[in-house]
Amino acid sequence: MQAYPKHYCGLFGVYGHPNAAELTFYGLYALQHRGQESAGIVTSDGREFHVHKGMGLVSQVFNTEILHGLAGRMAVGHTRYSTTGSSHLRNAQPLTVDSARGQIAIAHNGNLTNAARLRRELEANGAIFQTTVDSEIILQLMAQPSLNGHRNDLVQTIRRIEGAYSLVIMTENELIGVRDPYGFRPLCIGRIGDAWVLASETCALDLVHAKFVREVEPGEIVAVSENGISSVQAFPEHARRAFCIFEYVYFARPDSTIADRNVYKVRVEMGRQLAREFPIDADVVVPVPESGSCAGLGYSLESGIPLEMAFVRNYYVGRSFLQPSQLVRDADVRIRLNLIAEVVKDKRVIVVDDSIVRGTTSKARVNNLKEAGAKEVHVLVSCPPHMNPCVYGIDFPDRSQLMAANCSQEEIRKCLNVDSLHYLSQAGMVKATGLPAAGFCMACYDANYPVSYESGVDKHVIERRDGRLLSLTEAMRREKAQIKLL
Amino acid sequence: MQAYPKHYCGLFGVYGHPNAAELTFYGLYALQHRGQESAGIVTSDGREFHVHKGMGLVSQVFNTEILHGLAGRMAVGHTRYSTTGSSHLRNAQPLTVDSARGQIAIAHNGNLTNAARLRRELEANGAIFQTTVDSEIILQLMAQPSLNGHRNDLVQTIRRIEGAYSLVIMTENELIGVRDPYGFRPLCIGRIGDAWVLASETCALDLVHAKFVREVEPGEIVAVSENGISSVQAFPEHARRAFCIFEYVYFARPDSTIADRNVYKVRVEMGRQLAREFPIDADVVVPVPESGSCAGLGYSLESGIPLEMAFVRNYYVGRSFLQPSQLVRDADVRIRLNLIAEVVKDKRVIVVDDSIVRGTTSKARVNNLKEAGAKEVHVLVSCPPHMNPCVYGIDFPDRSQLMAANCSQEEIRKCLNVDSLHYLSQAGMVKATGLPAAGFCMACYDANYPVSYESGVDKHVIERRDGRLLSLTEAMRREKAQIKLL
Amino acid sequence: MQAYPKHYCGLFGVYGHPNAAELTFYGLYALQHRGQESAGIVTSDGREFHVHKGMGLVSQVFNTEILHGLAGRMAVGHTRYSTTGSSHLRNAQPLTVDSARGQIAIAHNGNLTNAARLRRELEANGAIFQTTVDSEIILQLMAQPSLNGHRNDLVQTIRRIEGAYSLVIMTENELIGVRDPYGFRPLCIGRIGDAWVLASETCALDLVHAKFVREVEPGEIVAVSENGISSVQAFPEHARRAFCIFEYVYFARPDSTIADRNVYKVRVEMGRQLAREFPIDADVVVPVPESGSCAGLGYSLESGIPLEMAFVRNYYVGRSFLQPSQLVRDADVRIRLNLIAEVVKDKRVIVVDDSIVRGTTSKARVNNLKEAGAKEVHVLVSCPPHMNPCVYGIDFPDRSQLMAANCSQEEIRKCLNVDSLHYLSQAGMVKATGLPAAGFCMACYDANYPVSYESGVDKHVIERRDGRLLSLTEAMRREKAQIKLL
Amino acid sequence: MQAYPKHYCGLFGVYGHPNAAELTFYGLYALQHRGQESAGIVTSDGREFHVHKGMGLVSQVFNTEILHGLAGRMAVGHTRYSTTGSSHLRNAQPLTVDSARGQIAIAHNGNLTNAARLRRELEANGAIFQTTVDSEIILQLMAQPSLNGHRNDLVQTIRRIEGAYSLVIMTENELIGVRDPYGFRPLCIGRIGDAWVLASETCALDLVHAKFVREVEPGEIVAVSENGISSVQAFPEHARRAFCIFEYVYFARPDSTIADRNVYKVRVEMGRQLAREFPIDADVVVPVPESGSCAGLGYSLESGIPLEMAFVRNYYVGRSFLQPSQLVRDADVRIRLNLIAEVVKDKRVIVVDDSIVRGTTSKARVNNLKEAGAKEVHVLVSCPPHMNPCVYGIDFPDRSQLMAANCSQEEIRKCLNVDSLHYLSQAGMVKATGLPAAGFCMACYDANYPVSYESGVDKHVIERRDGRLLSLTEAMRREKAQIKLL
Repeated sequence: MQAYPKHYCGLFGVYGHPNAAELTFYGLYALQHRGQESAGIVTSDGREFHVHKGMGLVSQVFNTEILHGLAGRMAVGHTRYSTTGSSHLRNAQPLTVDSARGQIAIAHNGNLTNAARLRRELEANGAIFQTTVDSEIILQLMAQPSLNGHRNDLVQTIRRIEGAYSLVIMTENELIGVRDPYGFRPLCIGRIGDAWVLASETCALDLVHAKFVREVEPGEIVAVSENGISSVQAFPEHARRAFCIFEYVYFARPDSTIADRNVYKVRVEMGRQLAREFPIDADVVVPVPESGSCAGLGYSLESGIPLEMAFVRNYYVGRSFLQPSQLVRDADVRIRLNLIAEVVKDKRVIVVDDSIVRGTTSKARVNNLKEAGAKEVHVLVSCPPHMNPCVYGIDFPDRSQLMAANCSQEEIRKCLNVDSLHYLSQAGMVKATGLPAAGFCMACYDANYPVSYESGVDKHVIERRDGRLLSLTEAMRREKAQIKLL
Repeated sequence: MQAYPKHYCGLFGVYGHPNAAELTFYGLYALQHRGQESAGIVTSDGREFHVHKGMGLVSQVFNTEILHGLAGRMAVGHTRYSTTGSSHLRNAQPLTVDSARGQIAIAHNGNLTNAARLRRELEANGAIFQTTVDSEIILQLMAQPSLNGHRNDLVQTIRRIEGAYSLVIMTENELIGVRDPYGFRPLCIGRIGDAWVLASETCALDLVHAKFVREVEPGEIVAVSENGISSVQAFPEHARRAFCIFEYVYFARPDSTIADRNVYKVRVEMGRQLAREFPIDADVVVPVPESGSCAGLGYSLESGIPLEMAFVRNYYVGRSFLQPSQLVRDADVRIRLNLIAEVVKDKRVIVVDDSIVRGTTSKARVNNLKEAGAKEVHVLVSCPPHMNPCVYGIDFPDRSQLMAANCSQEEIRKCLNVDSLHYLSQAGMVKATGLPAAGFCMACYDANYPVSYESGVDKHVIERRDGRLLSLTEAMRREKAQIKLL
Repeated sequence: MQAYPKHYCGLFGVYGHPNAAELTFYGLYALQHRGQESAGIVTSDGREFHVHKGMGLVSQVFNTEILHGLAGRMAVGHTRYSTTGSSHLRNAQPLTVDSARGQIAIAHNGNLTNAARLRRELEANGAIFQTTVDSEIILQLMAQPSLNGHRNDLVQTIRRIEGAYSLVIMTENELIGVRDPYGFRPLCIGRIGDAWVLASETCALDLVHAKFVREVEPGEIVAVSENGISSVQAFPEHARRAFCIFEYVYFARPDSTIADRNVYKVRVEMGRQLAREFPIDADVVVPVPESGSCAGLGYSLESGIPLEMAFVRNYYVGRSFLQPSQLVRDADVRIRLNLIAEVVKDKRVIVVDDSIVRGTTSKARVNNLKEAGAKEVHVLVSCPPHMNPCVYGIDFPDRSQLMAANCSQEEIRKCLNVDSLHYLSQAGMVKATGLPAAGFCMACYDANYPVSYESGVDKHVIERRDGRLLSLTEAMRREKAQIKLL
Repeated sequence: MQAYPKHYCGLFGVYGHPNAAELTFYGLYALQHRGQESAGIVTSDGREFHVHKGMGLVSQVFNTEILHGLAGRMAVGHTRYSTTGSSHLRNAQPLTVDSARGQIAIAHNGNLTNAARLRRELEANGAIFQTTVDSEIILQLMAQPSLNGHRNDLVQTIRRIEGAYSLVIMTENELIGVRDPYGFRPLCIGRIGDAWVLASETCALDLVHAKFVREVEPGEIVAVSENGISSVQAFPEHARRAFCIFEYVYFARPDSTIADRNVYKVRVEMGRQLAREFPIDADVVVPVPESGSCAGLGYSLESGIPLEMAFVRNYYVGRSFLQPSQLVRDADVRIRLNLIAEVVKDKRVIVVDDSIVRGTTSKARVNNLKEAGAKEVHVLVSCPPHMNPCVYGIDFPDRSQLMAANCSQEEIRKCLNVDSLHYLSQAGMVKATGLPAAGFCMACYDANYPVSYESGVDKHVIERRDGRLLSLTEAMRREKAQIKLL
């Protein structure tokens, strides 16, 4: 309920369109839900790159004049909520560098699990880092000379990185899409006339009238150049897939389709499944907008208990809000949703939401319902309890702050002070997707992590230095350089 | 469907609270739907006023530091969409002036129908105007000496102005609320401990935990000072009331309660009434969010046809958008709502919306449905056709652009290319409110204007000058001053 | 020495030029020394006004795009340092209003001495005020209906205002220049082809290649319209002139010519006169740049003692500087001027400056010289001691802060810790101008105020209210309106 | 005359002061003349770096709040005019990176002559570049592992770079100053109590009350750490020095002292030398401010011809000026300096300036003098003609635009339309410094370049890519990866 995991990143790329920057702007607009912290577009006119990045929403970072300045028929865009890398402009993506290979721009969605180790190796080898985003590691790897004297290619590079990554890469004359071998994060291919488009979700294709072609396969590299589009499977032996099921539950926009499953329909089905697993005798079903709306509708349709939109959302809540107020109790909760007391008064209420993360927001909402005179309150959650952190790029809080990792379900129920509390079963959740369980990453529910991560390395490690500094003065001494004291 | 009449204004006032500015900030936040163009707060610390106004959303115009600078236990705030007065900062409200009466701040919601005439009279009498907002006229009237030598009081002043007005006025030590004798616009009174609050809608009281006391009566002046609260009925003989019914249909927030009727429930009832008047054999009910959501739910509940939220709203649509794009057809429509094609494919679809104003947006939406493979499309509107302009402050387009004023219902149906088109009857609309028809202004539907307006005077007239300029040079000549040519 | 009286205002106007806004921009640029707080330009295209004002320097407030938006062949511009009216954007000039006379814009340089009284009268008569600048009073007076039923004309209006004023006024089709009957502030007329120009100083004419025509006479109104240029003397009987001599000493730019006297040459002559009045046996003459440069040169030329530019100015000192630093002692002084110690070491130094106002800056400079090893320091000031405040618009500090008003010359010398201190005699100062003493206002030196000012009325009075507030509630009571308590 | 070579960079560093950031702010303020494009400060609190950089003047980029956020007792600051690297924020210095060595910040004044070659080598070795400034090359070199397994130290690093460089480097616990073996650019050491300071010029020491200790020697590395200050001569065998003589002529602030010679006094002496070399029978000496002021004074003192400050500078000329105007002829020249016609009318005028670069500005100034009625105009330049470009960091125009490289002195005289034109002899210039000629770089006058530069490599080369791009798709093909066409 509201203290949601923060979204992470949206990717968009265009090859071969005269208005590449404007298309990318619209594409990012449709992907704004995947990251609201910074936005950037890099275009290539075949000779040089044009870059504009800024902090804030896509609509705040760009305007018509800026887009006109982004010349070229190729573009890559990124909208970001930081997963690694603190929130400074210099960490905004796409990242662009110059190397022996020419100019490269890269946009990344996901989290590398061996980032800290790779960074240490690269630094040992002489690399210097100017940002704290994983993309810089990928670029450094690509720039390394390989043993055979050839430059590392993308295949070699992505075989060295581990974890979750969907990438859109642009050189001066190619556009490339990459998806990690587990396919944690979505990435799809679209077409507008002769132009090719890459996007995190299909909703971005819809907005720019692009025709959906297919998804980039896990482990696949897709490259578009003047020779057309080609593809290579970089991990031909790899079998296990692990798409993040939380994309279906919460992240993706309901109008997107992933793996042939429309997200909205999956969510409605999760609500129906909830109703099958937990039939409750109540008067009204009240979803928590927007994330619980679909499941709430599903519960109502399946159970026959009427839906009531008793929580009203304020659509003008911006990002730059006041410091928490002592004046207006629960202002941060209340400013987003107001409750229509009359609708729930003297009613037995089923509240449907998509997750309970820290629990504080949920508690505030239940309080509102009680104060409004609800006779009973039943909270139903359209997925299992979140017990474990995500190491693949979703900004769940530490385990210490995950309510379900620290309390039994009955303790949570008591804490929320509700008449009953139910979570959708893992099997039920999977069943609602209509896809096999084996294809999902559900580590946040079941601790079954498809890719191991460096133990003891939390995601901020690369921002902290470990004091292994070699004194320059000391080095000079060691070189027996003659030291003259002033 | 989307090309909605623009909202107009939200008012908020506080008397006797140590955090008057912060409360007003939250109040305006809850009233943001009534105007997004500019926002302003004026406080009084008993000796002087503190003013901050800016263009944009409340959350953009204010921050913690600015609010701290707005000292005092009294405040008046305003959020505005221009009705009269073009969109410049100097027209942002509350307007503050200095006069023989001391400092006065005023915030106005509505539209004076005799503004142009009053302005001409005042100018003839020596007044100079620095803005184009009606509030300045009211202040000028209040500042005029009266015949009996006394200063004009508020009762005299408001008897001279005509049209729609809810006002919140602040002097150095009083907070005053006024509502026109017809009660066109809402205004209510709330209480937080010992402090008094005035607000356009009850949803603003909810956010700041204020207790609803009662509405300001049509024609009533309510004044709060150190002597407590008092009230006077300025139009004791007046009988006719004319509350704007479109507040129920569209303007007010669903969680507000007006005249003891919760807006959400009225809208659901309008949907039920639609279902009673126009039972249609269809597969799904698809509301156009957000304005059609409640009526859509009502239609579904009454008809038993399942609700589907097939239109998905992008919650990050900002105000500062690009110039209309030739590149992405209907980008402005599509960027707000995307359709989930799969949900409507091969279905007979009932679309529920709350109005068709110009028709262009509706047409684009219907196109989306057809392209997505909907078998039938039936459009149902939860109020009668808009045939007439509003002269009381709602920014409907000119009659020439009101689709229903220029086409028969059948013509509109054909133009939209839908299988059927139905509007809720006027009687049905009124019935859904549970209130007597006589208490409403429904002029936009039935041309029955409660207050006549100056004929030939459109609302921009006071921004254009009429060339009656008296040459200063000429004046000097007339005074027979000796003219020395250079 | 540096804590100079702040400058006040620069005026510029254009009639009949296709690039009126751009010319005005350049004109204000040349007049930037007369005010750096805000800048504004209003143009008229014959039908409507175009306005742009902002806080800061002319080059910060305007850019090419903004100037392009200021259409029309007439313009009036203003650059301001506040004399009355606090420093808010709403007080930026030119002020524009709408009245029975049409639109009027006004730019004012000077200070009305009967402003508070006029304002009270106007308020009593029903006027409301939105700013605290004197210009609004002038506009209100012009808008008042006169007894004979005619509108007040300019002649009547300016006969009611007292004090110092040079005005540039623009109606929709006239440009008017006015100078008070004493001619306190400069105003001159120029010509560019067929176009007419008004400007505070001739240096502004130079920049736009305008030919100097003549000065506006004290008491004269000059009007340019489609009928050409005409003029009237509003005070035909008036005799006494009182041009502010401090314009020659400090305010005006050295490249301006006022009353046929080039300011630079007058200042060099003041330095020569200093040398004649106070011949000193010294090694070097060191002027305090920039204000003391001309007089320093004059002293050197007359005395034969070599000039040394030992104080070096930092040309990049901006306005938005840090809060006073405890860290770097006298940072605010030192950041503007650094001393070249080597040049004054073991030398007998004559320092030439144009004024000692508060004394603190002078003291810091002398300290620098002593620390650098100067053997003797003699301070020479190119005007008499400032003993009295200015009531005509120059922002000298209060008498309590004027060093010369509170200390004898010997006390100042001791306080500065210099070997000798000399002020140019009043007669010597006048002699250097080559003009008769009777034509000057020298009140800041000799307390001989040409126009009396309202006693006890300091210049901020109109910003403070006097509590004479008439309660609106009280008024309602008095009207015996029926009071209904809630 | 005015179209001066643009300045380049100012450096400032602090070790061991509680207000390191604020001191650095003031230091940069005093060095603002060395670069106005961007400014930056990096501090170290011993554990992490704090960075703030921005485009514009020091006073625009920083404010009190920002400085408070820059915690730590160490700081390095930079003010920049681009020499290499285009003018983007990402090129602003100090540059900070993270490497195996920990965090390093570097600020650079000068220009590497082997930058392009080093960059190619580093790229071939796997380096990626995110900026186009030379400093990044230095950091990459420092990060490279050396053959003996040790990290490269500073001595090794600076032996690989060629050209002009003064550097201030900060690690997490050291502050280091470096000067190239020729000593092209200045760098000095100062002391404030126990704290150490590094600065480009002594004027920066003066402002922060730091005591001058000595200059960093050419080829010397000075390091301050908790162990105190130490120093090493990295080029013990090196003999030739080559300090940029144009620092004396134009770049340095007159109140700075370099090599024990006060810049102001050197410039006055250059003027005296001019008078000795070219005695002219004239009435007045008019310097072009500010750069010609000292030499003008020297000429006047030596010749006995009176000085007149006939050119008046507008001190409010900002950087963000309008596009060149067709409206006001020579607006860009005239806006900076206005001529007082009266002072030069009917006079034989000696104009003293410090350089004629393109000639256009000089021509405009001479025109002004002629139009003002000067009887004769003699132009005297206080250094020899600029015939050659600078490859060490001074942004002279290309040879094709250097007037003296393309015209004989007589041609220039005719072009300027003056009665005589004289340049100070090279010997005379050197003599005025009182230092041996062998210690200077005077390549811009005599083409005697102390360090050869890569032929054919102009200074923008590293911003343009050479098409050697290795296609990623191609690389994948070469790796025989299986290509699957879509």
